[in-house]
Amino acid sequence: MALIVQKYGGTSVGSVERIEQVAEKVIDWRNRGHNVVVVVSAMSGETNRLIGLARQIQDPPIPRELDVIMSTGEQVTIALLSMALEKRGCPARSYTGSQVHILTDSAHTKARIRDIDGARVHRDLDQGRVVVVAGFQGVDEHGNITTLGRGGSDTTAVALAAALKAEECQIYTDVDGVYTTDPRVVPQARRLDRITFEEMLEMSSLGSKVLQIRSVEFAGKYNVPLRVLSSFEAGDGTLISYEEEGMEEALISGIAFNRDEAQLTVVGVPDQPGVASKILGAVAGANIEVDMIVQNVAPDGSTTDFTFTVHRNDYDRALQILRGVAGELGAREVSGDNAIVKVSLVGVGMRSHSGIASSMFAALAREGINIRMISTSEIKISVVVDEKYLELGVRALHEAFQLDKEPQVD
Amino acid sequence: MALIVQKYGGTSVGSVERIEQVAEKVIDWRNRGHNVVVVVSAMSGETNRLIGLARQIQDPPIPRELDVIMSTGEQVTIALLSMALEKRGCPARSYTGSQVHILTDSAHTKARIRDIDGARVHRDLDQGRVVVVAGFQGVDEHGNITTLGRGGSDTTAVALAAALKAEECQIYTDVDGVYTTDPRVVPQARRLDRITFEEMLEMSSLGSKVLQIRSVEFAGKYNVPLRVLSSFEAGDGTLISYEEEGMEEALISGIAFNRDEAQLTVVGVPDQPGVASKILGAVAGANIEVDMIVQNVAPDGSTTDFTFTVHRNDYDRALQILRGVAGELGAREVSGDNAIVKVSLVGVGMRSHSGIASSMFAALAREGINIRMISTSEIKISVVVDEKYLELGVRALHEAFQLDKEPQVD
Repeated sequence: MALIVQKYGGTSVGSVERIEQVAEKVIDWRNRGHNVVVVVSAMSGETNRLIGLARQIQDPPIPRELDVIMSTGEQVTIALLSMALEKRGCPARSYTGSQVHILTDSAHTKARIRDIDGARVHRDLDQGRVVVVAGFQGVDEHGNITTLGRGGSDTTAVALAAALKAEECQIYTDVDGVYTTDPRVVPQARRLDRITFEEMLEMSSLGSKVLQIRSVEFAGKYNVPLRVLSSFEAGDGTLISYEEEGMEEALISGIAFNRDEAQLTVVGVPDQPGVASKILGAVAGANIEVDMIVQNVAPDGSTTDFTFTVHRNDYDRALQILRGVAGELGAREVSGDNAIVKVSLVGVGMRSHSGIASSMFAALAREGINIRMISTSEIKISVVVDEKYLELGVRALHEAFQLDKEPQVD
Repeated sequence: MALIVQKYGGTSVGSVERIEQVAEKVIDWRNRGHNVVVVVSAMSGETNRLIGLARQIQDPPIPRELDVIMSTGEQVTIALLSMALEKRGCPARSYTGSQVHILTDSAHTKARIRDIDGARVHRDLDQGRVVVVAGFQGVDEHGNITTLGRGGSDTTAVALAAALKAEECQIYTDVDGVYTTDPRVVPQARRLDRITFEEMLEMSSLGSKVLQIRSVEFAGKYNVPLRVLSSFEAGDGTLISYEEEGMEEALISGIAFNRDEAQLTVVGVPDQPGVASKILGAVAGANIEVDMIVQNVAPDGSTTDFTFTVHRNDYDRALQILRGVAGELGAREVSGDNAIVKVSLVGVGMRSHSGIASSMFAALAREGINIRMISTSEIKISVVVDEKYLELGVRALHEAFQLDKEPQVD
């Protein structure tokens, strides 16, 4: 008999029929002998409807009051799901974030959880009830209603799982797990049975948007095993946990990619201390986020080329800023390209295996794909290539590293 | 500088535009130097929408969860009104029933207020804020969300006014006050400047549905002056308070009537102890509410006629029950009429003036209206007449007692 925290997102509770289906699923787990705590989001579309209503009055709405209105979305869902459970003879109780003391800071619309008092939940579980908790919301120390920002229901579920020392936190979504890469690009993409927190962080931040990054960080920090699985299909999904003995010994877990990149280069900058900070400071000052950064020194050591990538939407603005900075720095010119993409190999196996990078570059070369930028970290290698090579490159790498095949357990 | 509690109902906050108008009105009172606490209902239609959603899952819905979902209606309105106030530079804070500790019993969907902690409200008022409170809802001692039943926002407003020792509780509705009778029946009907709690109770329970009865009782109990006024038109409305010296010395304040009555008579019941309780017991056992009751003893004292009125919807059922009971009691027959109405004169002046009843009967006789039943209390005289005489009778009484004219102050 284990304690399981389940989270169902907006699409999974998007209609009365779907809420009934969630009730069936919850009861199914309960019948297998588990204690279940369920975290739900607002019905899909509801949060946007409420924000729209608020904006008709005040735009932007005052954050404290926006939280008051937005938090009603999840409050409706918890009541409906509890009714659906009770109707089926399964004792249930709904709780708002405030009622189970999900204590947050006071940063309205983007609050962070500080503490959860699990006593009330444990009391209900001990009495044989399913506990249904509103995701996305909490309460600050003054009793004000707060929300955690979009996707915050994942964080609520993980935080509850940590506070209640749950065996597992299950995130139900509209996909049935984490894949080696996007199946729309590579039909042979394979669902991973397990992946580590670190790999998941690299995968999600690089574009495989299955889970909210903050919730993965949180789960990693408190060592809460996290499982991604489908609300609509049967299956075990993907378990995200720390590396364990006997785990799949894959070199590479997956291939992430990001289409929305643009590349900028300041060419021929006189190489002196402070160049990087001057260039990036100007860009950061305009609230533009920088992703990859690469700097090459010219052979004679007198000048340097400074290259970085930004979100494609920020390309024009960044180019304009750089032209000003380039003048001040005495750089030769500023060039850029907004038709590029980033492709990344991710895998904890890289740590203990050499030669991954050269295999990657060779696979791309075989297809005639030119690499424009390279950046590496402990568990990932990212390259920037022309946009037109995205699908070809991802497929070539997926095949080269045999990601369509189950890895062998040592 | 007085403290005023204002309540705006569902129609008054039925759209974004109307919420903006309420904000203007609140600021108007504030600019006149008052501290203002505002109680709001859910936007019109919203509570029904939420109940409909709940019923799609479970019918009837489990009361605890129905309260969780219904209470979101007012929560949306408090946030929107606070935004509309802040937008106009008026500091405001919204609070749910739970946040201002409107403590109730645990009778979900029809809870009663036990206590209110005004400290938080006073703190905000001291800081120059308008405080916006969700009507209709509270919290029980275990932290469960409760609701007060339909119309409960009036009660919230009165209870807050009592707890905060407000100067006045203003109930904004879609009528501009309490009238001597229904203006649709008597075009000369006059808005009353003042009326007593007792008169208001008789008026509202008899069909002039302006205020929720419970809130009038509550206001009377805690001596909170209650003012009914229009959300949409200027004017001072009607003040409901205790009788005071220098108050209008009206004999009669108004004429109430009720169209939905039906009359039933058990004729020729052998007159013996326990007859009334047997007849009414059978009717009450079928959950039928009885209104007026009259019993006449026959001249020879051997049998009695027992007459009472019920809601017209219950007529057929009551008739059937009575036929059974009449057989057991050895009564001669059961007769009934579902085309009757009740007309009542209401006024605290009756207490100290005799002859009101005979003036009333004379006025009706002049129009040839036959009186079928009479019932009197300290401040009211009710008669039952044929339905077709309703308008004629009410107009005759309105004229006879000169209700279209302002009363003279002694």
